[in-house]
Amino acid sequence: MNLPSDDLLQPVEGGLAWITGDGPHAGVILSTRIRLARNLERYPFRETISGSQQELVMEEIVEAFESTSNDMRQFVRLADLPETDLTVLLERHLVSREMVKFREASGLLVGDGGRLALLINEEDHVRIQALTPGLQIETSWQIASRTDETLRSQLRFAYHHRFGFLTSCPTNTGTGLRASVLAHLPALVLTREIAKVLQGLAQIGLTFRGLYGEGSDVIGNYFQISNQTTLGKSEDELVDHLGQITRQVIEYEENARQVLVRDALDEIEDKVWRAYGLMTCARSLSFDEMMNLLSAVRLGVSMKLLPRIGVSTLNQLLLWTQIAHLEKRAGRKLDKREREIERASLVREMLAEEGQDTDE
Amino acid sequence: MNLPSDDLLQPVEGGLAWITGDGPHAGVILSTRIRLARNLERYPFRETISGSQQELVMEEIVEAFESTSNDMRQFVRLADLPETDLTVLLERHLVSREMVKFREASGLLVGDGGRLALLINEEDHVRIQALTPGLQIETSWQIASRTDETLRSQLRFAYHHRFGFLTSCPTNTGTGLRASVLAHLPALVLTREIAKVLQGLAQIGLTFRGLYGEGSDVIGNYFQISNQTTLGKSEDELVDHLGQITRQVIEYEENARQVLVRDALDEIEDKVWRAYGLMTCARSLSFDEMMNLLSAVRLGVSMKLLPRIGVSTLNQLLLWTQIAHLEKRAGRKLDKREREIERASLVREMLAEEGQDTDE
Repeated sequence: MNLPSDDLLQPVEGGLAWITGDGPHAGVILSTRIRLARNLERYPFRETISGSQQELVMEEIVEAFESTSNDMRQFVRLADLPETDLTVLLERHLVSREMVKFREASGLLVGDGGRLALLINEEDHVRIQALTPGLQIETSWQIASRTDETLRSQLRFAYHHRFGFLTSCPTNTGTGLRASVLAHLPALVLTREIAKVLQGLAQIGLTFRGLYGEGSDVIGNYFQISNQTTLGKSEDELVDHLGQITRQVIEYEENARQVLVRDALDEIEDKVWRAYGLMTCARSLSFDEMMNLLSAVRLGVSMKLLPRIGVSTLNQLLLWTQIAHLEKRAGRKLDKREREIERASLVREMLAEEGQDTDE
Repeated sequence: MNLPSDDLLQPVEGGLAWITGDGPHAGVILSTRIRLARNLERYPFRETISGSQQELVMEEIVEAFESTSNDMRQFVRLADLPETDLTVLLERHLVSREMVKFREASGLLVGDGGRLALLINEEDHVRIQALTPGLQIETSWQIASRTDETLRSQLRFAYHHRFGFLTSCPTNTGTGLRASVLAHLPALVLTREIAKVLQGLAQIGLTFRGLYGEGSDVIGNYFQISNQTTLGKSEDELVDHLGQITRQVIEYEENARQVLVRDALDEIEDKVWRAYGLMTCARSLSFDEMMNLLSAVRLGVSMKLLPRIGVSTLNQLLLWTQIAHLEKRAGRKLDKREREIERASLVREMLAEEGQDTDE
């Protein structure tokens, strides 16, 4: 299959550790992300920094990281990358639209076996991002905080004795920490309990959004759950809090799945097999439709109704059926119609391979 | 597969010759039917005939047929059959609701390799029915008319020198002939030309209805096209007329399919493959949904987009997914939910066998 070859994993191989789908609770939680926002003391923040100062910021951060860590795999300057590669990185959540917009002075450092990314000259001078498969808040936190310490041994971050770490946007000030999990909650949606659960999150300082960041619609029943506040609580408290609540959400979702098995097994079997039938046969798939089919198939896999498919294949599909990934694979720009045909073709290919690989 | 076994083909094996799908123009015309309505001179018609007279009618017809023809395969009295078998025969169009209602004196004679059926004590004393696969108006006409002559060599049918053969309902008087073809016209439906074609039929003395007889909705894009009048034209004229018009309808449909290939191949491929995906994967199928999926798959087969499936399998599906056939196979009554699950299971089984049988 013309897929995750080394060539196509370029421009960077990092940030894809989550795709293995082999973390704890991978049937509900796709990935766990910890992000720390940091700024160097001696430079102005985003709003007033000059291009040459940004260049210095980038140099200092890369140097500090290289000199103290064996983790580094790759460093890329965004300005050096062609447009498609930038969009590929966007689709992998390894760079932000902000960075692409101001690409002249933006860079990306990846390391730690694909679990760590440093986004340089994003909204803040650096954002340390640790991304792990399944529910691994503690591990993600260790990766991020170890990297934070590594950098701090060489650099001085802007810090206020009362407020904590200072950030470009005040909503990040304090710990600068955003901890989030990407949860797949189809059974809570099907049993119509999801609204209650989401309301509950808001009441305890957590928030949710769709798969594609702030303001994005929830499609495919994927919910990013994260802490709303960064101030007034310690890092450990924030991380523990998200861990506790996530475990509760997992329990709700698993209960809802059991309710489905008990009360509506026929309907669920029909639903997940139909989704599988469409994914393996359709000749044209929009992204939204595919996300919804993928959600049903993922539910079927986690309920062991579709025995032959692995979670990692589903994660690969999530990644490789995005526009820039499809164009990267095709080696050219694709219009909407071509994309939908390419997407369907890729989905068929990946699921057909999966069907042959294992025998259960 | 627990299917067309001898046992399940009971109560009678007849009337199923059309299912082979190997007649001319089988990609558009499923079957051709010629029916002759006849009544014995010496007995009252349906409205006033007594039970014992009906018994005599049945005896005379069976005797006349047996003594002069080597074609006979089987004779059944409807009163001897359990309810499910009667419904099975109804679903095969070998008996009518009328016959089932007045089953005490109704009988069915089948012969000629499954192409001939004599419906005794239906609305008329006997209806001679010839059913062949594909477009075979001439052959069907020969089978029916040969049988008519056979019977006439022994029996006297009610005949009026001016009106022709007399029938229970005046709309059949004259030739007593109804010639019909079962046409699958999905491309004319997709290209929205079907209304024009059907209007054209009405203007030249033909009529259409759905697959399940008078007043039935058109589902699955199946249209029964037949002559509207029986009076004032000779049998040959009626038969020729239907033949000519049917060849024209086939041409319209084939042109429409070429238009689809030219202008919308991607969409059609997507449509037929999706239908195939749903049929091979769904765990529950209503009859109407299956008919629509089957229609798309049939279109795909005839356009060679789905190479592995034979028309005869599609015809089998049309037959065996009907309620009484499903119950016959299951060996018990099924409620709606059970039927939909059984139907989906049968469809999967038959298509899976098909996928393995041939390699193209």
